[in-house]
Amino acid sequence: MLTIQSIKEAAARIAGHIHHTPVMTSRAFDKVAGKQVFFKCENLQRVGAFKFRGATNRILSLTEEEKRRGVIAVSSGNHAQAVALAAREAGVRAVVAIPADAPKMKIAATREYGADIRFFDRLADDREAFGRDIAEREGLVMVPPYDDYLIMSGQGTCGLEFLEEVSDLDCILTPCSGGGLFAGVSVAARALHSRIRCFAVEPETANDTQQSIAKGERVSIAPPSTIADGLRVQTPGALTFPITQQNAEDVLTVSDEEIVETLRFILMRLKLLVEPSGAAAAAAVFFRKLPKDVERVGVVISGGNIDSDALMKILSQEGAAGA
Amino acid sequence: MLTIQSIKEAAARIAGHIHHTPVMTSRAFDKVAGKQVFFKCENLQRVGAFKFRGATNRILSLTEEEKRRGVIAVSSGNHAQAVALAAREAGVRAVVAIPADAPKMKIAATREYGADIRFFDRLADDREAFGRDIAEREGLVMVPPYDDYLIMSGQGTCGLEFLEEVSDLDCILTPCSGGGLFAGVSVAARALHSRIRCFAVEPETANDTQQSIAKGERVSIAPPSTIADGLRVQTPGALTFPITQQNAEDVLTVSDEEIVETLRFILMRLKLLVEPSGAAAAAAVFFRKLPKDVERVGVVISGGNIDSDALMKILSQEGAAGA
Repeated sequence: MLTIQSIKEAAARIAGHIHHTPVMTSRAFDKVAGKQVFFKCENLQRVGAFKFRGATNRILSLTEEEKRRGVIAVSSGNHAQAVALAAREAGVRAVVAIPADAPKMKIAATREYGADIRFFDRLADDREAFGRDIAEREGLVMVPPYDDYLIMSGQGTCGLEFLEEVSDLDCILTPCSGGGLFAGVSVAARALHSRIRCFAVEPETANDTQQSIAKGERVSIAPPSTIADGLRVQTPGALTFPITQQNAEDVLTVSDEEIVETLRFILMRLKLLVEPSGAAAAAAVFFRKLPKDVERVGVVISGGNIDSDALMKILSQEGAAGA
Repeated sequence: MLTIQSIKEAAARIAGHIHHTPVMTSRAFDKVAGKQVFFKCENLQRVGAFKFRGATNRILSLTEEEKRRGVIAVSSGNHAQAVALAAREAGVRAVVAIPADAPKMKIAATREYGADIRFFDRLADDREAFGRDIAEREGLVMVPPYDDYLIMSGQGTCGLEFLEEVSDLDCILTPCSGGGLFAGVSVAARALHSRIRCFAVEPETANDTQQSIAKGERVSIAPPSTIADGLRVQTPGALTFPITQQNAEDVLTVSDEEIVETLRFILMRLKLLVEPSGAAAAAAVFFRKLPKDVERVGVVISGGNIDSDALMKILSQEGAAGA
């Protein structure tokens, strides 16, 4: 189960392994957004993303027998790095299945952390089956990216820290892919502050959660082509979705252009490097997609892992537009 | 006078105006540097640089008569922005003399903060005389960039916060231009921790302080051409230099290449945007210029204001080198 208790247990378990990330503010951002915004900077988390929280909680909870067998993760990048590092620190073997077109720096970091990497084709292969096959063949324990209560509880520690530091938020936003971050953060936030309003944010071309909420059941979409490589999931998790249904006041969507402009602003004005997925929730605020009656806004910046050539491309688009 | 008392008074005066900036760590950086490094992130300060501390302390200390007259600053960029914003918040008119080749974003921000901008030629004009002439003609109060005890005391609050947060540092490094940051930080650091070792860092082509220390008196150098636009001062301050002489165990120098490589590492791995001047002290640690017997190292990252085209150029050099 995912509860405030399971999140507090996770916080105790992973303390000393994770960074307590800072909360930042920017009057320049507030001016554009027309809100008072607090950023929980998980781009400054170890491995550069919140994913390290859940992976660490999961791996520290393995039995001794499971530790001897080793773990496997299937991930577009950040979960891969997170599992690789958490496993290394626990002395556990890690195999990571990763799309061949994942950002180079995510692949390089995963390798640097000592994981055994297997590539798959994001558009052609069934990622679940690909990972399951390896797990069965090699006797490995699957560490799912989101559909697991220990993973969700780990991600929830981000919300716990956030609300403990800034208690009087009107609302909180997280990017939403499989839904583990949103589930964990929203459960923590509502436990600490029962009237807080929670919003999930997706790229408009990867709005599987928005469609699923509208339909009242999990919808599966074609592989999306958003710049936000961490948010390309095709369907919400079976375990995360009911929590999202219950806790999300709304699912907001942002365009790739909105993500890119927000990323640039956060880089040049807040001096923080954010990856496209990591900027999605901030973009929804920057482009004023929130209801008018919220003022104090909490935004989770979920990650900062971007290749320098992708970053250059984003900066050069600005040059081309003369902005 | 610059004392721990004047620094504590400054801290009380500017509280509520400035950000209490976070201290960051990075195991990846530590691995390269071979030290345990703590970064005081003044790139996350308001206006993107520590300069806002000193400027705010100076302007809040003006008499009512001086406030009515207005202020003038001569600056390569960050001090300009700092004075412009601090003056606006105090309701004081600000004129800023700025080199025509200063980074565009520093000029734009200074203008955005409502200052009246006058350009001079950094290589041809005498900047001191240029500013003094305007001050006399228009009856303005000069806000010097470093050679002023209220400015130095303001900058010292950065050291005060740093040592209050991380008490057991073996040494502390700051970039050194006119010497105001080093003077303030070193006085604060030694007051809180008498055995701390203090190092000033300059670009090797802008080593006026290093030369001055070696000669035992202030030396003036030709206008330097380092990438670190904030560190192009030609001679140490008359008031700062004796303090630097007394507190600096050594003046370390770094090449532009070392600055650029460090800036890239801090951006891509620590997810923090730092300007070249702001990366100088970190570069001295990254390239192992410290004595072997220091372990816990405090580094002031002094600022983060860089144009996006300059940043692109730095990122593309990486691409060219295949790194």
